[in-house]
Amino acid sequence: MFLKNAWYVAAWDTEVTQQALFTRKILGVQVLIYRDDEGCVSALEDRCCHRFAPLSRGQREGQNVRCMYHGLVFDASGRCVEVPGQDRINEKLCVRSFPIVEKDHLLWIWMGDPDKADASEIHDAHWHNEGRDWKAGRGGYIHYQSAAQLIADNLLDFSHLAFVHQNTIGTRAQAGVKPQVERLENAMRITYITRNTPIAPFARVLSLLPEVTDRYQVYTWNIKGCYFAQDSVITAAGDGPETTDPRALRLHAMIALTPETEDTCHYFWSSAHSDFNPGLDGVTEKLIAHTAKAFQEDRDMIEAQQRVIKESPGAAMVAIPADAALMQVRWMLDKLLAEEAAQEALRKGVESAPPGAPPQAARTVPLHTA
Amino acid sequence: MFLKNAWYVAAWDTEVTQQALFTRKILGVQVLIYRDDEGCVSALEDRCCHRFAPLSRGQREGQNVRCMYHGLVFDASGRCVEVPGQDRINEKLCVRSFPIVEKDHLLWIWMGDPDKADASEIHDAHWHNEGRDWKAGRGGYIHYQSAAQLIADNLLDFSHLAFVHQNTIGTRAQAGVKPQVERLENAMRITYITRNTPIAPFARVLSLLPEVTDRYQVYTWNIKGCYFAQDSVITAAGDGPETTDPRALRLHAMIALTPETEDTCHYFWSSAHSDFNPGLDGVTEKLIAHTAKAFQEDRDMIEAQQRVIKESPGAAMVAIPADAALMQVRWMLDKLLAEEAAQEALRKGVESAPPGAPPQAARTVPLHTA
Amino acid sequence: MFLKNAWYVAAWDTEVTQQALFTRKILGVQVLIYRDDEGCVSALEDRCCHRFAPLSRGQREGQNVRCMYHGLVFDASGRCVEVPGQDRINEKLCVRSFPIVEKDHLLWIWMGDPDKADASEIHDAHWHNEGRDWKAGRGGYIHYQSAAQLIADNLLDFSHLAFVHQNTIGTRAQAGVKPQVERLENAMRITYITRNTPIAPFARVLSLLPEVTDRYQVYTWNIKGCYFAQDSVITAAGDGPETTDPRALRLHAMIALTPETEDTCHYFWSSAHSDFNPGLDGVTEKLIAHTAKAFQEDRDMIEAQQRVIKESPGAAMVAIPADAALMQVRWMLDKLLAEEAAQEALRKGVESAPPGAPPQAARTVPLHTA
Repeated sequence: MFLKNAWYVAAWDTEVTQQALFTRKILGVQVLIYRDDEGCVSALEDRCCHRFAPLSRGQREGQNVRCMYHGLVFDASGRCVEVPGQDRINEKLCVRSFPIVEKDHLLWIWMGDPDKADASEIHDAHWHNEGRDWKAGRGGYIHYQSAAQLIADNLLDFSHLAFVHQNTIGTRAQAGVKPQVERLENAMRITYITRNTPIAPFARVLSLLPEVTDRYQVYTWNIKGCYFAQDSVITAAGDGPETTDPRALRLHAMIALTPETEDTCHYFWSSAHSDFNPGLDGVTEKLIAHTAKAFQEDRDMIEAQQRVIKESPGAAMVAIPADAALMQVRWMLDKLLAEEAAQEALRKGVESAPPGAPPQAARTVPLHTA
Repeated sequence: MFLKNAWYVAAWDTEVTQQALFTRKILGVQVLIYRDDEGCVSALEDRCCHRFAPLSRGQREGQNVRCMYHGLVFDASGRCVEVPGQDRINEKLCVRSFPIVEKDHLLWIWMGDPDKADASEIHDAHWHNEGRDWKAGRGGYIHYQSAAQLIADNLLDFSHLAFVHQNTIGTRAQAGVKPQVERLENAMRITYITRNTPIAPFARVLSLLPEVTDRYQVYTWNIKGCYFAQDSVITAAGDGPETTDPRALRLHAMIALTPETEDTCHYFWSSAHSDFNPGLDGVTEKLIAHTAKAFQEDRDMIEAQQRVIKESPGAAMVAIPADAALMQVRWMLDKLLAEEAAQEALRKGVESAPPGAPPQAARTVPLHTA
Repeated sequence: MFLKNAWYVAAWDTEVTQQALFTRKILGVQVLIYRDDEGCVSALEDRCCHRFAPLSRGQREGQNVRCMYHGLVFDASGRCVEVPGQDRINEKLCVRSFPIVEKDHLLWIWMGDPDKADASEIHDAHWHNEGRDWKAGRGGYIHYQSAAQLIADNLLDFSHLAFVHQNTIGTRAQAGVKPQVERLENAMRITYITRNTPIAPFARVLSLLPEVTDRYQVYTWNIKGCYFAQDSVITAAGDGPETTDPRALRLHAMIALTPETEDTCHYFWSSAHSDFNPGLDGVTEKLIAHTAKAFQEDRDMIEAQQRVIKESPGAAMVAIPADAALMQVRWMLDKLLAEEAAQEALRKGVESAPPGAPPQAARTVPLHTA
């Protein structure tokens, strides 16, 4: 069960071109995303309503898409506008369309009630646009064989930095750091400060900073759209986060999780940064490479965790204090899911439930406590 | 659920040799097919009744087959004729045998009630034998990751020629052609005439016909045995189907579908043809190669469609007028399945139902209409 | 359902080193096995109780293991002894540990009630230690895609020697040999004597024996721990099993089956032997290679049998007299399983049943009889 009334990242802008039809499963629905001759992007369910051929095997004709099984044509709203050999077109011949918005080099999709889609609620990703004070490190895409929730858990407990990432972006000295956790509206802000410790391996290689540093990591986890945004800075020990030392390594990191299915997830990420080492060639590419390695470390662990969870039906996890943030997020998410389910039930009113989908209480991947 | 009282193609004659044991799953049953020293072909369930070792890992001994796990020997009727070290043989030691007939270079199998098997009802495939007026283009075999019904649907709606096959055996000009549909006894005859249009790509390459042609395609879809037989001719525009122009391209095509499981299918095909271009070396091989390419186009689309259908439980297709033939076939098939289930119930009488198989109404892959 | 109160082989000693963490699924439970600096071996469930990360992705620290997701440390008893950043440790933070004993080059594990584990009940595998009169042919490990029971069946009916192994360790002349079957306490002893027949292919190649031989095979199948131990000798025909002919080929074979899941199995084997051909270089390696080939023949057949069984729900096997031993073993095993289930129910007392596991009668892979 997914929170649907939210803007999710569907793709990087560069993934969807005018030359090809793009298809990706999002919140359990296969979605065709295409770009027309004017560059405008549309999203349709990737399933012809006639005989269920995938539209992504079709052809774009201007702003429309033709199913290449029996030739039906659909416009960007999903309405069938041509049936070969037929003059009248049954109005039931239509496929579902989804609001989609291109902004900050990302394509944002709304899988829920279209009437609720408000583009002003799209998360801020302005760091993807090159700025005077920063370089846009547009990272990439990772496919995860795990539930989105397990990746969110990982992001909500930075104690793993000391272990999973001890050779990349974390240090063993971060073990036991106590974060400050603040609950916001549908979000959580976490402040994670590591003082007077050896510099993290990636920064030792890339920056001009001394061996002993302070590190300030402040991030927000947005439940709607599974959107992580972090501002961080590594400074020489004692300088303070507002230092004007040009060596200070400032990062603006984004991670956007878009559930593919209950058990798999899309993971989009970037790492914009200050010009902390002007003498280093390809600093952005190098930073991205170091970060990619760290994110691979996360994936290895989380996918392994997911496999163990699947093999452990009914077994109960035991919570520790470091789980405070992720437990609050689960409570908030369960509340939002319940609200959305109630709204959906109201909206559907007398419509019959779809076959195979009995009414269901909201639920997230359970966090068991013994 | 399969229609069992019908002759299905089990294999091409050349697939089953005296040198090896051949095994194929047919209507959900793994079947051992073997050829004895006299060339006679037999079919047994590919499962030793003793400990369920596959007989196809055994050895043929004359007309019999020895299971190579514990050495039991079965004759062509499925009766156990030897148990090593035992004098008396329990009469329950037998495996199921199936009527099988070799005819027109095909092996035809009957998976239903053996008492109903009548070899005179085997479909006509005489084009596989070389003739005075035609060349036997014995095509091949394709394995499908889709239900037989979806392939039948494809054959019952030639509107896909204009889209799926626009670069091979169809032309975009065929879009909107209205077929003539006739209902026969357990069959459907369809006449599909395309007049005064650009020649189909395969015929442009292979034949001496001019650019503008007429095309007459008349085919019968036989529900029993899932057997498609088509006579077609491409002529210079206006000549009429009975033309004596030696350039006219006459084809006699067969497609036989044999369900493997509910979701997978065997596909046997051939394309006999007139001697429409005597100067072309290897005309049969070239025609077969072009057709194979087109059938690959079908498979790509149908397997994709099958995957979408599996992902869409409860979703409803929307029918269009071009679906008339396939809808009639589904109704006829459902009726035949219900009759067969009733007969089976009668035949079994007081026998208890097999475990795990509750009484079930006949059903085909549903054609949903909104 | 597995018999749990028994010593099973978990691994060869050499599989578990101080340099790495070893993980293997045993009776459906993923188990971490590790060797500490003193060489002592421990076994823990391979699942951190905190967030279910696999401990086998962790690091050994002396006698303890650190989970490398969030850094928790567990000792060899499974107790959590460190949570980074926390002073007090919740006593619920513990993972399951298992009795494990290293003996005769094998690691023996007890997956049942730890209070019942008595190391004196570990099966005798002393042949793995080099002796004055024999060479220890420590074979290897095979992974089986089949239930343990089907492999046990194979070992309990040597009539397959004449067919499965006719080119390796059996001869066709063994077809029809009648074994002597004795029922022991939780075990079966089988005596299988083949007189005056052509020497088995492996012995023809390796030994100095003449073409016509007698073969005495006496083995015990122990239901607890699925442990097979065989003493056998091949002699010149008529010499008798106690012969002092140095050419006589004496083997001491072990096969230990450890169920991995209901459908898969670990298979450990060895073949100690007399010095039957002192002039042959690498006699042990050659004997092991011949035996490995024969065991591959078994696996090919049994895995094929397992696949057929999975495809045959509800179908009934037909027993023959050669099945007497394996049928008795199933009866004995069912009785032991029922006893263990009753004890377990008593032990758990008012504890609630785990989710998803309704009360269940003991059962083995059924041996159907028509």
